[in-house]
Amino acid sequence: MPQEKVAIIGSGNWGTAIARLAGINTAKHTDVFDGSRVPMWVFEEEFEGKKLTEVINTEHENKKYLPGIKLAEHIVAVPDLLETVKDATALVFVTPHQFLGKLLDQLEGHVRKDAKAITLIKGVDVRGADIHIFADVIEQRLGIPTSALSGANIANEVAKDTFSETTIGYRSKEDGELWQKLFQTPKFKVQLIDDVAGVSLCGALKNIVAVAAGFCDGLGYGSNTKAAIMRIGLLEMKHFCQEFFNDVKEESFLQESAGVADVITTCLAGRNCRVAKAFVGSGKTFDQLEEEMLNGQRLQGTLTAKEIHEFLHAKGKARSYPLFDKVYQIAWEGVDPEQLTEGL
Amino acid sequence: MPQEKVAIIGSGNWGTAIARLAGINTAKHTDVFDGSRVPMWVFEEEFEGKKLTEVINTEHENKKYLPGIKLAEHIVAVPDLLETVKDATALVFVTPHQFLGKLLDQLEGHVRKDAKAITLIKGVDVRGADIHIFADVIEQRLGIPTSALSGANIANEVAKDTFSETTIGYRSKEDGELWQKLFQTPKFKVQLIDDVAGVSLCGALKNIVAVAAGFCDGLGYGSNTKAAIMRIGLLEMKHFCQEFFNDVKEESFLQESAGVADVITTCLAGRNCRVAKAFVGSGKTFDQLEEEMLNGQRLQGTLTAKEIHEFLHAKGKARSYPLFDKVYQIAWEGVDPEQLTEGL
Repeated sequence: MPQEKVAIIGSGNWGTAIARLAGINTAKHTDVFDGSRVPMWVFEEEFEGKKLTEVINTEHENKKYLPGIKLAEHIVAVPDLLETVKDATALVFVTPHQFLGKLLDQLEGHVRKDAKAITLIKGVDVRGADIHIFADVIEQRLGIPTSALSGANIANEVAKDTFSETTIGYRSKEDGELWQKLFQTPKFKVQLIDDVAGVSLCGALKNIVAVAAGFCDGLGYGSNTKAAIMRIGLLEMKHFCQEFFNDVKEESFLQESAGVADVITTCLAGRNCRVAKAFVGSGKTFDQLEEEMLNGQRLQGTLTAKEIHEFLHAKGKARSYPLFDKVYQIAWEGVDPEQLTEGL
Repeated sequence: MPQEKVAIIGSGNWGTAIARLAGINTAKHTDVFDGSRVPMWVFEEEFEGKKLTEVINTEHENKKYLPGIKLAEHIVAVPDLLETVKDATALVFVTPHQFLGKLLDQLEGHVRKDAKAITLIKGVDVRGADIHIFADVIEQRLGIPTSALSGANIANEVAKDTFSETTIGYRSKEDGELWQKLFQTPKFKVQLIDDVAGVSLCGALKNIVAVAAGFCDGLGYGSNTKAAIMRIGLLEMKHFCQEFFNDVKEESFLQESAGVADVITTCLAGRNCRVAKAFVGSGKTFDQLEEEMLNGQRLQGTLTAKEIHEFLHAKGKARSYPLFDKVYQIAWEGVDPEQLTEGL
């Protein structure tokens, strides 16, 4: 069996945490992977007067996005995208979702025909009544089978090797097992399921539920209400995916880390919940709060709520998803958060 | 249709919160219920120099167990058990589980043959390789069909009318609808499912998971690990019930308030989680911690872990439930909490 050549596209907080795991496993499973060199594409920037790629390649640490965590020495930061993927047979996409389109413009025609990919990008591509998961977008643009990984994975915790689980939705069992071998360690358990869409959509839709959970916290509601919101949200996620995607598996939502466990993590910790909590009673808009609390970074959950609302509205189905609808109305239409649980 | 005469057996924190709902609904649905009088059995004790039944009947408030919450005036505290149930056609059991045996000794032969019951008692009756849910125990002793109610229901929150959900596992659809009518309000949503065993067992087994979640907190693990523990725990609960009980429904665990939502609530708030957290690194036994933190009251989760361990051991199946087993070993066998996630 030829050795798989891994390339990692992205080097933020999550990308670097994942590169650490890939470094361990490409060195360990040399029967499967080329363990001599794993290029990692880095969007070049300055860090403390040096190029970030230089910092990573001399210190074997991404001091900007994951300080304090060492990477294997054969993880090599590369500023050039096409050089990163030149020989690669196994591409890991782990960039912010807004960069994907431009990256694919560059990559088209420059990736090996026998390669495969996996996306760890959160979110979903919605344009009016059109919705696509990123795995499908990558697959269509590059012509290579693309799996998806999502789970209850706060990057810093995975990086520190506390016990975590994740889920890979695979295109073929063989691909799934390859990606599992690349990421699994004794403290990072990878489950496999034949459901790329379900796993991908969990990672996007959970953020709407987290906004609802944050409203609960802001309203001073107790844990009965919060648990109810999480349960209802999980079922709306499942219902949505079963209605608009083929062959989605119920287990992805109800039994996998990508589903129930990630909803829990995201509703307990995380910025969507935190900013939504601050929204209640503040008299501020989410734009203002993003400026104040996130240095102007956009909140995923409210954005996804809006996109999904527009999609459902175009389909004439907004009222079939009362929790998603209520989050949209509170976040974007000035509806009083106190109305959160009405009609659920 | 004859009017159902409701009687409530129990008047603690949860019993009183439930009596409040029954008071509202017996007055509202007079086509179904006798709204003139709902007796509530009270274990007579003194409260501030008066009999507790007197306090409840003059102030319409259980000042000892649910202070600050008013009950309907037709909820009548009765110290005599047989008088409480004399005419009743709809019996609500909501006592601490250790009282049930003695209550049934008294009730046997004194309950109407056409009555039905519902149990809100948490826990399960385990004796070695023998396991019974309380609904079956009541049904066998009194010869009346017995449903079960369980859900993400912290009593004080239900009493304060914040949005909550619960699940009733029914014996017949007709019974389920009757109990739903007795308890459901706009802020307390009751789902029905044809699964008495699943709903009952959720209420018992979730406490083992909460102990594991508390260990996580005590060990300083983050939310990835805690979410993973909750997910694994939920699946062990489901697996256990499917292995040892007939006709258990997967949805009770994965989709209902009694399952996933109650696991969430119990692992976020609640004494099992809190005391297990304190156990880690304390050098104390659970007996000592119960003395210090709970005024000597016994913790449900560690007790259930022990009973379930003895049951599984008798069946030769302890190793098939690694999380339940690990909780037992840490709580009772001196195993280091750091080993919690090993072998999961």
